[in-house]
Amino acid sequence: MKRIGIMTSGGDAPGMNVAIRAVARKALSAGLEAYGINYGFAGLVAGDIHEFKATDLDDMVSQGGTMLYSARYPEFAQEESQLKGIEQLKKFGIDALVVIGGDGSYHGALRLTEHGYNAIGLPGTIDNDIPFTDFTIGFDTALNTAVDAIDKIRDTAKSHQRVFAVQVMGRKAADIALWAGVASGADAIIAPGFDYDVEAIANKLKKNRANGKDYGIIVIAEGDANSDAAPEFVEKLKQYGDFDARATVIGHVQRGGVPSAKDRVLASKMGAYAVELLLEGKGGLAIGILDNKVQAHNMLDLFDAKHQADDSLFQLNEDLSF
Amino acid sequence: MKRIGIMTSGGDAPGMNVAIRAVARKALSAGLEAYGINYGFAGLVAGDIHEFKATDLDDMVSQGGTMLYSARYPEFAQEESQLKGIEQLKKFGIDALVVIGGDGSYHGALRLTEHGYNAIGLPGTIDNDIPFTDFTIGFDTALNTAVDAIDKIRDTAKSHQRVFAVQVMGRKAADIALWAGVASGADAIIAPGFDYDVEAIANKLKKNRANGKDYGIIVIAEGDANSDAAPEFVEKLKQYGDFDARATVIGHVQRGGVPSAKDRVLASKMGAYAVELLLEGKGGLAIGILDNKVQAHNMLDLFDAKHQADDSLFQLNEDLSF
Amino acid sequence: MKRIGIMTSGGDAPGMNVAIRAVARKALSAGLEAYGINYGFAGLVAGDIHEFKATDLDDMVSQGGTMLYSARYPEFAQEESQLKGIEQLKKFGIDALVVIGGDGSYHGALRLTEHGYNAIGLPGTIDNDIPFTDFTIGFDTALNTAVDAIDKIRDTAKSHQRVFAVQVMGRKAADIALWAGVASGADAIIAPGFDYDVEAIANKLKKNRANGKDYGIIVIAEGDANSDAAPEFVEKLKQYGDFDARATVIGHVQRGGVPSAKDRVLASKMGAYAVELLLEGKGGLAIGILDNKVQAHNMLDLFDAKHQADDSLFQLNEDLSF
Amino acid sequence: MKRIGIMTSGGDAPGMNVAIRAVARKALSAGLEAYGINYGFAGLVAGDIHEFKATDLDDMVSQGGTMLYSARYPEFAQEESQLKGIEQLKKFGIDALVVIGGDGSYHGALRLTEHGYNAIGLPGTIDNDIPFTDFTIGFDTALNTAVDAIDKIRDTAKSHQRVFAVQVMGRKAADIALWAGVASGADAIIAPGFDYDVEAIANKLKKNRANGKDYGIIVIAEGDANSDAAPEFVEKLKQYGDFDARATVIGHVQRGGVPSAKDRVLASKMGAYAVELLLEGKGGLAIGILDNKVQAHNMLDLFDAKHQADDSLFQLNEDLSF
Repeated sequence: MKRIGIMTSGGDAPGMNVAIRAVARKALSAGLEAYGINYGFAGLVAGDIHEFKATDLDDMVSQGGTMLYSARYPEFAQEESQLKGIEQLKKFGIDALVVIGGDGSYHGALRLTEHGYNAIGLPGTIDNDIPFTDFTIGFDTALNTAVDAIDKIRDTAKSHQRVFAVQVMGRKAADIALWAGVASGADAIIAPGFDYDVEAIANKLKKNRANGKDYGIIVIAEGDANSDAAPEFVEKLKQYGDFDARATVIGHVQRGGVPSAKDRVLASKMGAYAVELLLEGKGGLAIGILDNKVQAHNMLDLFDAKHQADDSLFQLNEDLSF
Repeated sequence: MKRIGIMTSGGDAPGMNVAIRAVARKALSAGLEAYGINYGFAGLVAGDIHEFKATDLDDMVSQGGTMLYSARYPEFAQEESQLKGIEQLKKFGIDALVVIGGDGSYHGALRLTEHGYNAIGLPGTIDNDIPFTDFTIGFDTALNTAVDAIDKIRDTAKSHQRVFAVQVMGRKAADIALWAGVASGADAIIAPGFDYDVEAIANKLKKNRANGKDYGIIVIAEGDANSDAAPEFVEKLKQYGDFDARATVIGHVQRGGVPSAKDRVLASKMGAYAVELLLEGKGGLAIGILDNKVQAHNMLDLFDAKHQADDSLFQLNEDLSF
Repeated sequence: MKRIGIMTSGGDAPGMNVAIRAVARKALSAGLEAYGINYGFAGLVAGDIHEFKATDLDDMVSQGGTMLYSARYPEFAQEESQLKGIEQLKKFGIDALVVIGGDGSYHGALRLTEHGYNAIGLPGTIDNDIPFTDFTIGFDTALNTAVDAIDKIRDTAKSHQRVFAVQVMGRKAADIALWAGVASGADAIIAPGFDYDVEAIANKLKKNRANGKDYGIIVIAEGDANSDAAPEFVEKLKQYGDFDARATVIGHVQRGGVPSAKDRVLASKMGAYAVELLLEGKGGLAIGILDNKVQAHNMLDLFDAKHQADDSLFQLNEDLSF
Repeated sequence: MKRIGIMTSGGDAPGMNVAIRAVARKALSAGLEAYGINYGFAGLVAGDIHEFKATDLDDMVSQGGTMLYSARYPEFAQEESQLKGIEQLKKFGIDALVVIGGDGSYHGALRLTEHGYNAIGLPGTIDNDIPFTDFTIGFDTALNTAVDAIDKIRDTAKSHQRVFAVQVMGRKAADIALWAGVASGADAIIAPGFDYDVEAIANKLKKNRANGKDYGIIVIAEGDANSDAAPEFVEKLKQYGDFDARATVIGHVQRGGVPSAKDRVLASKMGAYAVELLLEGKGGLAIGILDNKVQAHNMLDLFDAKHQADDSLFQLNEDLSF
């Protein structure tokens, strides 16, 4: 193996640049060459590929987004596209790849491995929705962004005796909502996998009011990418009492920003480990952190598995918030 | 004069607590007593009033929201309510007041002055929409929050070659949009008082793309408190080209948070000046900062005046953004 | 068991207030009463103790420092003091305690347990220097503060082609230095337990300069609480080359500030778990998070153990930084 | 005039990159060309000069430091160096310049103007120590950084009943200390131009303690670049009472970081105005903001003038802090 290619795929996440830097620098440290592939699998097929020099990556520890850009490219599911991609790998002399992105992008990585080009996947997404990893690259930063936003919203909620329904990201996963809910002392968390009852929430808010806490924060997972969860909840809540309730959707700010320290270290560890695995001749693996240890799992197993959020947070929040 | 009452009214803004502290501490320094009135004019009428001790206010330099709470109370336009309020002032021995809030709350302050209770208004609102002041308390903090959000969104815009229409607050005023637009290098600013043409914006974005800048940020003022300005703009924009365009509404986070240093100093200066004016036996005045000097204007003149945003920022942004 | 007492001891750390809230709220949820003990063991002996109501703790998720204050009190090593403390526990009807602090404070907790008052320890310190836990409450926040500071310093380092020796906290532990070093892409990390050679660092900086990177960041652990490590390093470095080198000591800002989301969730989990253990009649235990699971260990075992930093970060940084 | 050169000189300041962008983009908008000169006057003499393309500057609104680097170059006081610089201007066809930096760098700008190359100065420094401007580019950001640090330190001060002497930057100017002192509610401000008495400060802290405020924050200007002001103050303070007093020096973090919104708008206005002046054939002028209006003054007058801090802040703080 002489040359490692690196790409990002799927939604961007803070820390992707740190992972790119880690893969490229670790490769250079090991005497390899590192190549960046722009725009994910689309750029691979198009040959939008360039060599990394050591100093290209100096600032990447603190930059949000992805310097390699990202793009959707469902066409890569077809063998024709895959073969074109492999053409390019041959042309640029790239022997192996690291793909940073959601588990959707792992399918492409596995195809390349099957074609003889070892590829390793790194979990880069704010949603934390990938199996076999407790944390994805970007989750910690997005969580801090969400919690910081809720802190600000709480100022207004208290000043005006309001109830805010705050919608956080996470696609179909409950993770951001659960963690942000506990971290911000939400009066209720509404998230996929957990039943809720608007009337019961209304009653809790009324009870709080009777006890002297006359405002509320409800953290709501978006459920899916297009949901209007928070505004809808507010409409329902108002049917159960005289609440000055407002919806706010934190939105895309959760995808960007300077990566947190934890995300930087996680991305650095994972990126370096990916190169180690490639050096051992391995491919088709997805890296995760489980039990606080960076480790790899077979992508095929991962496709059969389901991400499991830390469900204990739901009850924890019930116990602590009133 | 022996006792000064302090209240916040209208929407909360970062720095209101700093202003409360400044009024109360300046009053105490001058040998007066300071009383907090909760929930604005509603609390005045209800007699929800308490004395401030010096150490009550230690932490207020860094707290968002308003420790005196705020509430709408249109009833105070009626003389009956005003007389009830004056009852309470008599009961608590309060001789004069400082009202921190939007210009709506100045009407109540003027009524009290007419009844013989000098009242001074402080401009506390993130919207910067009050005449006779270049800056309101809270504007700088809200602006920084908006710009920080746009910085994060830019990460995603660049990574995905997207156009983001970012809606900022400001009610009917253009200020947050103009300042945030310049500060974040927006490709276009859409704000009250400035014509725009969706096709022209689309063309500019296409031209940028041709020049190698394949993403865009459009900053849009909410126009009024309930507008859906950004999502509507995105729909229109898509009619003029193949843009991966998204709307995001920054929302209520702009109202809360730790006040910026500038807002803290402004609130401190204004609060202390209000007490000085009351000590001189003056009332019915609104404090502002004009030409970098804290000064007072007659409230009656203010009601006839119109806030003027810094219009030069629009052309400045046109010159700098491409 | 009817009443749980809570105290903080040793240096303050962001997240202590979240832990206090978690213990108190979990106790209330379980039908118990919760009492706050001010100023650590000193306040216990002095009887500076008050009951927590549910709403006392609303804001504590986002407040740095400790609302229960902290104080050194070596006198508690003597049985006389311990007996006075137990007097107070009897007087206030407190049956069990949670002590949040460094492992020094666990000794007092163990003494109380031996006297028949079950006490559980929570690791609250930014230094991450407690055995049997991968992370302490406060470490993540302090780390983010340090990394944010280094990001700012890097701006100046690059602008002026300078080398900055940045001293971070951590007392005798290497953790903040190792994590912050990796997270900020430091050119070298100097930390307890790792040999270093000033000349080798100078040579690396010179090599970087030859490759086009003409600035440097060296992250240095304070080593102990009073060290002048960074200024001394700068003096030595200048003997090996013509460096425009400066020392900066990040200092006490690392101890304060709004707790990070991770610290909030960690503190919430640990606080709730402490109450569960007390409800099971257990005492003399120290809570930690190991392998991403909150768990408890015998304090006696802990005193014999030694905290182990994540040593792999040192080599990781060597591989990634050039 | 066809080509404008841009350089930064002296200490870096947040917002310099925004100013560079503004000058270059405004020049391009006016049909001119824009050239960046690296490393200040040293780079001018060495011919380290490159053309700016429009898209080079996209990200510069949010980047701290200076992309054009900075360097000390006292040699430019000699005519020989100046002539070499003019050589380079001829070689690159540069007709006029904008120099962003402290007033030291204005001398070089004036020399170039005298040689027939109009140069305009922009006040880029965190210290706010330039005559004829109420605010310099970078001051607002540095101030926010200092205030944020003091907020964090206050958490520890309160938790441990400590007095912190916090040293801020500003060289010989009092501005950062005065503004940060008011903004953080310091118990005392020690700054050039204001007498102070350690015993009186000690007495105030004792009085506070008697009133229930048992911690303190003293904000101290560095006085000059190498002072040990805070540690020395702590030693003196301890002679007047039993204080748990600590010194902390905020240090170089104040020079870097993402520019604040206000600094971005100020830099944008000033940069654009500089180009307007050059287009009018003017040179030897320094731009400032006075009475909230961007305006220009003759550099010769500026050299005779003295920056005046907003002295009223000192008394304001005395009135509000106790």
